[in-house]
Amino acid sequence: MESIFLRGVKAAANFTGTAFVNTLVKDAEDVYNCRVYHVEFEAGARNFWHKHSAGQILLVTAGTGYYQERGKPARVLHYGDVVEIPPDVEHWHGAAEGNRFTHIAVNPNTHKGEVAWLAPVTDAEYKEAAQ
Amino acid sequence: MESIFLRGVKAAANFTGTAFVNTLVKDAEDVYNCRVYHVEFEAGARNFWHKHSAGQILLVTAGTGYYQERGKPARVLHYGDVVEIPPDVEHWHGAAEGNRFTHIAVNPNTHKGEVAWLAPVTDAEYKEAAQ
Repeated sequence: MESIFLRGVKAAANFTGTAFVNTLVKDAEDVYNCRVYHVEFEAGARNFWHKHSAGQILLVTAGTGYYQERGKPARVLHYGDVVEIPPDVEHWHGAAEGNRFTHIAVNPNTHKGEVAWLAPVTDAEYKEAAQ
Repeated sequence: MESIFLRGVKAAANFTGTAFVNTLVKDAEDVYNCRVYHVEFEAGARNFWHKHSAGQILLVTAGTGYYQERGKPARVLHYGDVVEIPPDVEHWHGAAEGNRFTHIAVNPNTHKGEVAWLAPVTDAEYKEAAQ
């Protein structure tokens, strides 16, 4: 699977398994009040539970993955899918077991803060999501 | 060329040639203060000169196209390219002559307004951009 966007650097924390993050829009001078990332998850990789005080938008570009909000069944994601993650909703996202998975992540209103990381998604939680 | 995102509806105004716009995030309830579009330009199609009071971010997903700011040479765009369009800068974007072209457009801070449309890009301006 070829990625549209470069894979960037290996995520050093807050992921289980291997993922790569490419900051597409850093907005260092705060012109856009918005940051944009490309995230590539190796098969089975996922991020920790987390939440965004201003929400986040995911645009799926390739592969098969999951998005799960706390207390809800996981949603299976494929290219072309869009996920609107409301502010302060605990969730995680990541690749399906046998598939790489890539998405763009748009973080709007970054003046409100970007992300609060929580606990890892356990293997049991991941397996249940994948059922 | 297959698109990742559905092509949406034909643009009824403010484009020269044929383009399709799919609203990926409408943000009708203003949760994100941000709208996201997928735009597909048929070969040679382009939008009119325009500007965004809060700026715009383009994420190129396929094809070959152009981005030009008023008074500057056009920039050639390919998949994986990112364009940061500052607030109030007059510009246009569109497909190269023999190529379809698709991009995601992120409009942040929509409470400031989204777009002001200006004059069409003339054939002469387009040809000069393409040189």
